[in-house]
Amino acid sequence: MTKSSVFLLCSIVALALTITGPQVSAQSSYAEDRAMIENLIARYVFALDFLDADTVASTFAKDAEFDTSSGVTKGRDAIRSLVLQSAERSRERRAKDTSGLRPSAGRHFITNMVIKVDGNKAEVRTYWLHMNNDNPKCAGTADSFGHTEDEMVKVDGQWYFSKRKIYNEESETRSAKGGNPAW
Amino acid sequence: MTKSSVFLLCSIVALALTITGPQVSAQSSYAEDRAMIENLIARYVFALDFLDADTVASTFAKDAEFDTSSGVTKGRDAIRSLVLQSAERSRERRAKDTSGLRPSAGRHFITNMVIKVDGNKAEVRTYWLHMNNDNPKCAGTADSFGHTEDEMVKVDGQWYFSKRKIYNEESETRSAKGGNPAW
Amino acid sequence: MTKSSVFLLCSIVALALTITGPQVSAQSSYAEDRAMIENLIARYVFALDFLDADTVASTFAKDAEFDTSSGVTKGRDAIRSLVLQSAERSRERRAKDTSGLRPSAGRHFITNMVIKVDGNKAEVRTYWLHMNNDNPKCAGTADSFGHTEDEMVKVDGQWYFSKRKIYNEESETRSAKGGNPAW
Repeated sequence: MTKSSVFLLCSIVALALTITGPQVSAQSSYAEDRAMIENLIARYVFALDFLDADTVASTFAKDAEFDTSSGVTKGRDAIRSLVLQSAERSRERRAKDTSGLRPSAGRHFITNMVIKVDGNKAEVRTYWLHMNNDNPKCAGTADSFGHTEDEMVKVDGQWYFSKRKIYNEESETRSAKGGNPAW
Repeated sequence: MTKSSVFLLCSIVALALTITGPQVSAQSSYAEDRAMIENLIARYVFALDFLDADTVASTFAKDAEFDTSSGVTKGRDAIRSLVLQSAERSRERRAKDTSGLRPSAGRHFITNMVIKVDGNKAEVRTYWLHMNNDNPKCAGTADSFGHTEDEMVKVDGQWYFSKRKIYNEESETRSAKGGNPAW
Repeated sequence: MTKSSVFLLCSIVALALTITGPQVSAQSSYAEDRAMIENLIARYVFALDFLDADTVASTFAKDAEFDTSSGVTKGRDAIRSLVLQSAERSRERRAKDTSGLRPSAGRHFITNMVIKVDGNKAEVRTYWLHMNNDNPKCAGTADSFGHTEDEMVKVDGQWYFSKRKIYNEESETRSAKGGNPAW
């Protein structure tokens, strides 16, 4: 190998690595994946509480499984229907309400996200607590809590829930039974 | 173009990209911006609850708008005054308190941050819930919750609130009226 | 210096920077450190609430100090023992319980993380609130809150608590006394 061949090889390899390096780093680093996953979970919660079924559905992969107190719902379309029905029931309850109180709000607060990323897959654990203000003073009151066990998948650079299971400590059948669900 | 010119060009471009690349990536990636914004919001909350008006004011841009139950306050100096007055009222309430209880604490817990970054601007949505321990056992009690709709601006590499509006489900006038405020 | 020496130097420096650059950036950026620290804190909380003493201990540095209502516990092994004893007391309470209720759960929710990184050290402040469901309906009830003041250390690329102090507003001796503990 001549000296000039070595120079050329070095230059081309350096140039190639330089051009591809930072982008790959930005797209696939733990912080970048975690940031996108945190944002997805926050978007899911806003949409759920504000009865926006389309946005909730859009946070799930097409063939995702959503395991709730209603059982296991499979597929993005079925998940949209599930949330629509739940939203419809909320609206009906509000319409029928004769308490004289203004419509109450319910909100989920998510914390403690344990996120393990492996390429285009991720395992996620979170805590949730729920608040309502369904009382004469509309004061905030905590009413339930639990955790979630989630699997996520990255498709075309976007993260989605591929499996989401909700545990709820208020419910005998859906409360956590085993040991530490994280790691 | 001679072979050695090609080598030189390759080398210089690679060197230039290498030196500038990672820093640009680190400063402007979604994860870096999100990390800085999350930290700013956490600093704001600590300062607010611990009656540190200077630090609260420092999280707002000079011409920021802060929309609270006191109305719309404009500008960092006016925001500092607003927080100082509120802190002063807290201290007076504590001084006048004759319950025999030790001073109570109030704290805001922020979750579910939806953060959309576009260059030096960002739109942010968060949830908040408030706890107090103003009772004989000093036990923690949730008392109110809501969400925020924020605009942020990045100046000289630092993020600031440029507009912050607080929604509060305890208040008829300040509760959320429309659909999903996130996206 | 000959022209070819300049080429060689440029090439080698570019190649070296390229190979080390992105990794250094990914490992040492604020977002990467913050993401790892957030994940560590979430893992700590899951392990604490689900009585997994080994995992709790693994989040502390070997010579860490853990300052709780039990006093200051020094060293990872002593911290493991402390959590084991606490877990044992929880299991005994559940075993002796004659209320007829199913075992109750307690959970800590962490928010508002202010994180300042300086090389392989970090200072961290967080808020916590605690929920339990120890009532006939197993409904979620908030019962206490406070903040933490933490020091962290990075060893071989992993973050650990080197000092963790828990403040608790329910407790006269452990409630916050001074001004803003963040910055």
